[in-house]
Amino acid sequence: MVDIEKANATVVERMMEARPVVTGVAKALDVIPGMRENLLLHAGPPVTWERMAGPMKGAMVGALMFEGKAKSWEEAEGLLTSGKVTFEPCHHHSCTGPMAGVISPSMLVYIVENKTHGNKAYSNLNEGRGKVLRMGAYSPDVLECLHWINEVYGPLVGKALELMGGLDLRVLLGKALHMGDDGHNRLDAASLFYTTLLAPSVVRAAPNAETAAETIRFMGDNALTTLNQTMAGCKTMTDAGHNVEGSTIVTVMARNGTDFGIRVSGLGDQWFTGPAGHVKALYFPGFSEKDANPDIGDSTITETAGIGGFAMAAAPAIVTFISGKPQDAIDTTLDMYEITYAEHKYFTIPALDFRGTPTGIDIRKVIEKGILPRVNTGVAHKDPGVGQVGAGVVTPPANIFEEALIAFAQRYGYE
Amino acid sequence: MVDIEKANATVVERMMEARPVVTGVAKALDVIPGMRENLLLHAGPPVTWERMAGPMKGAMVGALMFEGKAKSWEEAEGLLTSGKVTFEPCHHHSCTGPMAGVISPSMLVYIVENKTHGNKAYSNLNEGRGKVLRMGAYSPDVLECLHWINEVYGPLVGKALELMGGLDLRVLLGKALHMGDDGHNRLDAASLFYTTLLAPSVVRAAPNAETAAETIRFMGDNALTTLNQTMAGCKTMTDAGHNVEGSTIVTVMARNGTDFGIRVSGLGDQWFTGPAGHVKALYFPGFSEKDANPDIGDSTITETAGIGGFAMAAAPAIVTFISGKPQDAIDTTLDMYEITYAEHKYFTIPALDFRGTPTGIDIRKVIEKGILPRVNTGVAHKDPGVGQVGAGVVTPPANIFEEALIAFAQRYGYE
Repeated sequence: MVDIEKANATVVERMMEARPVVTGVAKALDVIPGMRENLLLHAGPPVTWERMAGPMKGAMVGALMFEGKAKSWEEAEGLLTSGKVTFEPCHHHSCTGPMAGVISPSMLVYIVENKTHGNKAYSNLNEGRGKVLRMGAYSPDVLECLHWINEVYGPLVGKALELMGGLDLRVLLGKALHMGDDGHNRLDAASLFYTTLLAPSVVRAAPNAETAAETIRFMGDNALTTLNQTMAGCKTMTDAGHNVEGSTIVTVMARNGTDFGIRVSGLGDQWFTGPAGHVKALYFPGFSEKDANPDIGDSTITETAGIGGFAMAAAPAIVTFISGKPQDAIDTTLDMYEITYAEHKYFTIPALDFRGTPTGIDIRKVIEKGILPRVNTGVAHKDPGVGQVGAGVVTPPANIFEEALIAFAQRYGYE
Repeated sequence: MVDIEKANATVVERMMEARPVVTGVAKALDVIPGMRENLLLHAGPPVTWERMAGPMKGAMVGALMFEGKAKSWEEAEGLLTSGKVTFEPCHHHSCTGPMAGVISPSMLVYIVENKTHGNKAYSNLNEGRGKVLRMGAYSPDVLECLHWINEVYGPLVGKALELMGGLDLRVLLGKALHMGDDGHNRLDAASLFYTTLLAPSVVRAAPNAETAAETIRFMGDNALTTLNQTMAGCKTMTDAGHNVEGSTIVTVMARNGTDFGIRVSGLGDQWFTGPAGHVKALYFPGFSEKDANPDIGDSTITETAGIGGFAMAAAPAIVTFISGKPQDAIDTTLDMYEITYAEHKYFTIPALDFRGTPTGIDIRKVIEKGILPRVNTGVAHKDPGVGQVGAGVVTPPANIFEEALIAFAQRYGYE
């Protein structure tokens, strides 16, 4: 019999010892493994155009407009349904994308390198909150912002990151958890810290003062400036623990707005999927539950790595954004200790006497305890073109852990 | 009989509604009321040269060297003991200074204006941690840094503040309390937020990119960058509640390293003083309790305004710096509710279900409950020339509250 405990210990040790550093910015086509012209990446497990959620369709149409390949919805849809443009999950290409998670070949992406084990991951550049591509919006102002990000902001940020020799995301996130962040939906402190660290190099690398000022302002105004780098960083951590023979630890959780999918370290690249849940949310003024798309995005990689919903006890103020009481945030973290394998060495929670965050979801414990992983997330409008409508909390469907455990038993010869 | 409850309600309302905005930077001589050539300001209540603490003597000597009035300790001491240079408390001049709190005529100071009531306060510019003037150090490198602050950094920061139309400190501190700051010894989040907000204007106002980059780096590297503005901001708040007939609320707490002094709203500008306490501290490597000067500095104006030690429940991670357990931080805040008049409207604590911070120390309650205000503070070496040796927690001497209450009874005709 395989030694599951030993395998799981190896996985969490590798996840925790991974040290992701964001080293720069490059064109998706130039750096993402397997990226090609006429390929779009998207969040979550694989999905067909027919079953695809509204906001993901909106983001794909917007991405093709951004690429100059389509001028209208109809034209874009034609390319996507004819097979002239194909689409595959970010996770099949060492990437993660928040919400719709659409990455197109010309988009700039962050390069995040795990300095301990050498593996890399990528994510696109965050556009801010509200009416943005990742939430399914694709109007001219959305595309204009994307072009500015790709032509002005991104190149300068990339130069600044190179000038400062990269920025250690594990250190950044460790400090941010001591400053009221959860590392997923609340990245206020991480984004301020990142902006402060990067700003001198932005100034030194900028072509002129106004570009530097505007770049720092955009970076500093957006409390999710560090979301995408954090996700890619978490991806390098969980990838470092993936494909360990005999491990029952989850190494991917991701949603495409239709399905929620997981992968398990000891079960290779097989997806286990079930219906994406409805988010228990606080809605922005003018929106309600009936506007909400089901759970979407690769950002659950943060919970998979031991932060986000799992570290909510560090972030009591997050309840003003995602609903609930501060005690709920504490209780969520305490619950997650029940289904995880380790307490994180480098991510600690002051309010819990500096206890390490619950790290490494064990599918056996999820089933045994009947406790599902807790995720906090933004909510996109179900229709393309609208954008974000709220934020809240959600869990994966239970069946995917059951199916994964059955597959594990079959694969490793258990009854 | 005077209506004490009504008077106290007025005081805390004015303290809470005060909205301090840091609007710029100017030379002390040009803006501080009553500032003059050959005058030094210092922290705490009045003190003679003979009774003055080592670090305050060191800072005064350093300030005279900085002013070009003395080249040696002996020369400076001669000026200070002969009366050619005189010294008075910061609090007599609408100022506050951290630790030794020495402000000399040529030094730049922040201008902080309470936009609600129109009163102003001032404080010098923070030099960072360790071997610095405010901790009693005065070596050439300390003076060189002060000159850079006065000639390069300060003028640029002042221009940036003007360009952005000032920065609202009440908003800044309110957010920082949701990001793990206490608003006194832990200002990590406030300083990152401040740097992020100010950086674009620094870039736009700078004479060149390198000066902008170095200014942002200095501001961002120093977790106490916002301490002095915060103190002046708190001074405008407590000053707004000062001199209300019949009030038992404390409007100043300040220490000069020898004495701890308080003022009470209904008792005008009279100081009530007793011996400065010994700080229960975590010491930097190589230092111990025997190196420590007693409690020193005007920074207790933060606790007087309802933050700092009073808001420690917002800052569980502060115990890594000042000693103790996260639960001690919570308990400290809970204790302070026992001796204060109100819960702050704008400063709230997520971990206590967004309860307002304990605000407005009532000398009656201090005596009745037998609970002294809790302060957290840096610790200076007792000898001039060394600098900071640690940080910890301390309380004022009990006698000053007793004496204030007796004076109150006499003044207002109670038995």
